[in-house]
Amino acid sequence: MDLLVTIDQNYLQPLETMLTSLHDNDPAPYHLWVLHQQLTAAQVATLTTTTQQWGWQCTAIRVPADRFTTPKTTKRYPQEMYFRLLCGDLLPATVKKVLYLDPDTLVLRPLSALWRKPLHEHLFAAAAHTGLTTIATDINRLRLNQDHAYYNSGVLVINVALARQVITQEALNAALIRYERQLLLPDQDLLNLLYGQQTLRLNEMHWNYDARKYLGYLTRSRGRYDLQWVLAHTRVLHFCGQAKPWLPGHDTRFTALYLLYQRKAQILFNH
Amino acid sequence: MDLLVTIDQNYLQPLETMLTSLHDNDPAPYHLWVLHQQLTAAQVATLTTTTQQWGWQCTAIRVPADRFTTPKTTKRYPQEMYFRLLCGDLLPATVKKVLYLDPDTLVLRPLSALWRKPLHEHLFAAAAHTGLTTIATDINRLRLNQDHAYYNSGVLVINVALARQVITQEALNAALIRYERQLLLPDQDLLNLLYGQQTLRLNEMHWNYDARKYLGYLTRSRGRYDLQWVLAHTRVLHFCGQAKPWLPGHDTRFTALYLLYQRKAQILFNH
Repeated sequence: MDLLVTIDQNYLQPLETMLTSLHDNDPAPYHLWVLHQQLTAAQVATLTTTTQQWGWQCTAIRVPADRFTTPKTTKRYPQEMYFRLLCGDLLPATVKKVLYLDPDTLVLRPLSALWRKPLHEHLFAAAAHTGLTTIATDINRLRLNQDHAYYNSGVLVINVALARQVITQEALNAALIRYERQLLLPDQDLLNLLYGQQTLRLNEMHWNYDARKYLGYLTRSRGRYDLQWVLAHTRVLHFCGQAKPWLPGHDTRFTALYLLYQRKAQILFNH
Repeated sequence: MDLLVTIDQNYLQPLETMLTSLHDNDPAPYHLWVLHQQLTAAQVATLTTTTQQWGWQCTAIRVPADRFTTPKTTKRYPQEMYFRLLCGDLLPATVKKVLYLDPDTLVLRPLSALWRKPLHEHLFAAAAHTGLTTIATDINRLRLNQDHAYYNSGVLVINVALARQVITQEALNAALIRYERQLLLPDQDLLNLLYGQQTLRLNEMHWNYDARKYLGYLTRSRGRYDLQWVLAHTRVLHFCGQAKPWLPGHDTRFTALYLLYQRKAQILFNH
């Protein structure tokens, strides 16, 4: 299975925590593809050494600083925003499909069922963070004038072979300029605006559980989605939003779990 | 390091969860001593096989059904209540010291510092669950007429060599009869009544953290003992009381952590 991550230096430790949880809960050997612009050779070596000890392969690809010359009107967006959508151009032609995971996730169960989902003509598979209501979807439908769910781009299956043919930097830049005033989260909005129709919807409770929404999920499901359910069924826990579990003061039902993996990662990656 | 557990069939799965957390967070090889009356040969074999795969030794000792003929007045107490206090009589003479852990605990860090604590002339080392107040201690001092803290018997270091000389079944039975009306938790009360003066006090935040008391610890420490502190310092998390994390509906800041280890245990012990 091929796993794509894109990373700047600030997210290196969360990335290591996520990888530690994946290794701990999924026996499969992964080929890890790391797209980055700023990691040092020592940082890449640490990632490579530890994941190779797990029996994984690890390929870090440094994207040249001038690879994406963002249009003037979009200077507020970092270049890394392109990495997911344009991974077809950045990964070797031999890579036909990847799983993509944000560094602010924890993996609690094997991902093989996600990897095996047939994508057919879809470019992406992604979940929408509805919190079991339609409110967020309704707002984003209005904002972006869409007729599909508003997908979260933190957990994806990417049909790299098809993306390589379909997604171009020119198309992204044209959309960035055209929709500038409507865009809040650049890569996620672009995915929804341009490719939402070609996205296969995943079950958010299984594949991209929004850890902030525990009480909402629990209440709206009339008690069905309690912690026992989550630990028995959820594969990927996503710590979306501003409050991150590696920052002081985080205090939720999933914080202790995160901190356990954070410490395991610190041991495994020799910090 | 020698680790003592005492077990009836109802607590076998929690025991396996506790052992899994210990193995996961402490690289030391243990010699596990299991005192029981009711485990089947298959259950003992599963315990032995899995812990031997970890590089541990495992010795299960079946205590004969007629070993402890409880006095008539104390028939409400199970025989297992004697196992901790009389382990000197039940374990081989070569065992001079053991760590004892209740099955409703999780180990989050290595226990070597606990094992190395010099006991000198103390029979036990134990923590008191104060919750950072003196209320519980004050009530129990009155109830049992004691001038020391009220110790929790869920996490112990036992000076087995000394206990073998000092603690007798006759002394326990005499106390059971004499104090019958004051006793609420038989073995814990007996430990406090008879041997509280010979018990070395442990830091409860490190060695026997009462998982029910999170908000109390946090408030009374003015925010110091938050989840970040607990995951960085606490070695043993103790799920005291009636609400157990393996029962439906448990919903605390430590439930997810428990359920993760419960599932790991189910995999490791082939359930």
